[in-house]
Amino acid sequence: MIRYIGVDWGTSSFRLWAIGNEGQLLGERKGGQGMSTLTPAEYGPVLEAHLAALGVGPEVPVLICGMAGARTGWHEARYLDLPLPLGDLAGAAIRVPGVARDIRILPGVARRDAERPDVMRGEETMLLGAALRCGVEGTICMPGTHSKWAQVTQGVLTRFETAMTGEAFALLSRQSTLSGFVGTEFDEGAFAAGVRAALAQPETVLRQLFHLRAGPLLELIEAADVGARLSGLLIGQEIAGAPVGEEAVTLIASGLLADRYTRALEIAGCTVRRLDADEAVRAGLAAAAAALWPTCIESVS
Amino acid sequence: MIRYIGVDWGTSSFRLWAIGNEGQLLGERKGGQGMSTLTPAEYGPVLEAHLAALGVGPEVPVLICGMAGARTGWHEARYLDLPLPLGDLAGAAIRVPGVARDIRILPGVARRDAERPDVMRGEETMLLGAALRCGVEGTICMPGTHSKWAQVTQGVLTRFETAMTGEAFALLSRQSTLSGFVGTEFDEGAFAAGVRAALAQPETVLRQLFHLRAGPLLELIEAADVGARLSGLLIGQEIAGAPVGEEAVTLIASGLLADRYTRALEIAGCTVRRLDADEAVRAGLAAAAAALWPTCIESVS
Repeated sequence: MIRYIGVDWGTSSFRLWAIGNEGQLLGERKGGQGMSTLTPAEYGPVLEAHLAALGVGPEVPVLICGMAGARTGWHEARYLDLPLPLGDLAGAAIRVPGVARDIRILPGVARRDAERPDVMRGEETMLLGAALRCGVEGTICMPGTHSKWAQVTQGVLTRFETAMTGEAFALLSRQSTLSGFVGTEFDEGAFAAGVRAALAQPETVLRQLFHLRAGPLLELIEAADVGARLSGLLIGQEIAGAPVGEEAVTLIASGLLADRYTRALEIAGCTVRRLDADEAVRAGLAAAAAALWPTCIESVS
Repeated sequence: MIRYIGVDWGTSSFRLWAIGNEGQLLGERKGGQGMSTLTPAEYGPVLEAHLAALGVGPEVPVLICGMAGARTGWHEARYLDLPLPLGDLAGAAIRVPGVARDIRILPGVARRDAERPDVMRGEETMLLGAALRCGVEGTICMPGTHSKWAQVTQGVLTRFETAMTGEAFALLSRQSTLSGFVGTEFDEGAFAAGVRAALAQPETVLRQLFHLRAGPLLELIEAADVGARLSGLLIGQEIAGAPVGEEAVTLIASGLLADRYTRALEIAGCTVRRLDADEAVRAGLAAAAAALWPTCIESVS
């Protein structure tokens, strides 16, 4: 029996999980319609279509995290401020008005600092899951288009910063003078070389980028290596600017991205604990759902 | 009487100067056809059309610098290596084959270093003019899509590096999540703030970029200031990675770019000597033409 629906609604896609009494996964849906393509009026119908496909009744509540709560999303769930006890997120969820179903959207978090303003939306749910369900503390890295670095102490998010790494990689690999050299190959040695170069001289990233153009022109760098080097350079740059020394970092990521960041963090001298990103989001949604709808019987799994 | 034609043939445009016996400017042409749009077979006709428009006879020689000498240009003028006595450039010019007119293309310069490969093509001519005609020595900055930093000692180019600043600015201001905030406004204070932020923490550029997105979202930064801040951030990053301390820098640049780099270099504590980029190119072409065609009578102007 489905007790609640959890949704991670992003910029260009969403994922939906139907969760049962014991916290077990009873159904799953994915879609390509995210904030960048939906008008506010379209979110409801898109959601209901997926719920109908899973046979979900109208009494089942839905909890959403991510960009659906942005000002340009479905219904704005305004940012909470720092420091943030992660357990407060559930109570701050906004109920979507004008629909029969109980649909809540979790808020994002902002650092309202004029010198170093920052925002996150969606990652706070991963942090909630990691901290309250997986015992994670300390420095946490969540790579992506806009990578997040967070500090969590005793369940409280005390600080975070965002690095535009993924977006910079997309721009440089597809739309720059380096693009002609970037293909599908990925050499681990080239990646590591890029990481080390960035860690050694992080203040020279704009120059290191041009080496990736001059190198192939002069046949001193394999063109096939440029993509991997670029990836290593930018990830290394992100780590160089991060508040880590030789300490333990919890990496919340999946797939290839998890592998690359693990490798880069280890090159930087960090000990890496890995937590799957999907698991973290689902754990966060579960923790918030348990607080919002306590009659949902859940075992700690 | 026209003694030679000088041409700076770039990626997306070219400029042509008709020079007389006393080194005076007798005619000028500009065009939008650069290396990125021309096939090798088209360069000759494009050039001759402009020369015909100026009434230039077939006996007048032409000296070209810039991307026309690239492998994907008109006719490859292979890179020279470091250290390079700038006076050697003229003798290394390649004559374009298969045309009646005496047309020469100056070579670019390469740093064939597997760790830090680098190339320039066109800037070497500005350096030639600056060093041999304008008495410039020491650290030279030539901003642009791919900004160049060079060291010249007693007429010898000893080292140089390229920073992808202009290209990064174009990508981020037009095709990134910051683009929606970048308009035509340019606030000097916002520019200076960007420069200072980059100089203070150059290893955190990927984070500082995201502040320009979070700031307007949180209404802590004026959206109208984002373009200027972005410009300051990237130029500041370029300077932070440059081999300068509080010393004199010769800035070879024109227009707005010259103003911005002058301001940024001064914020960084440098003393700036300005040299107009067009003047430097023309001086370099003049120096090389005097060496190639010594029967061209030129006074030192």
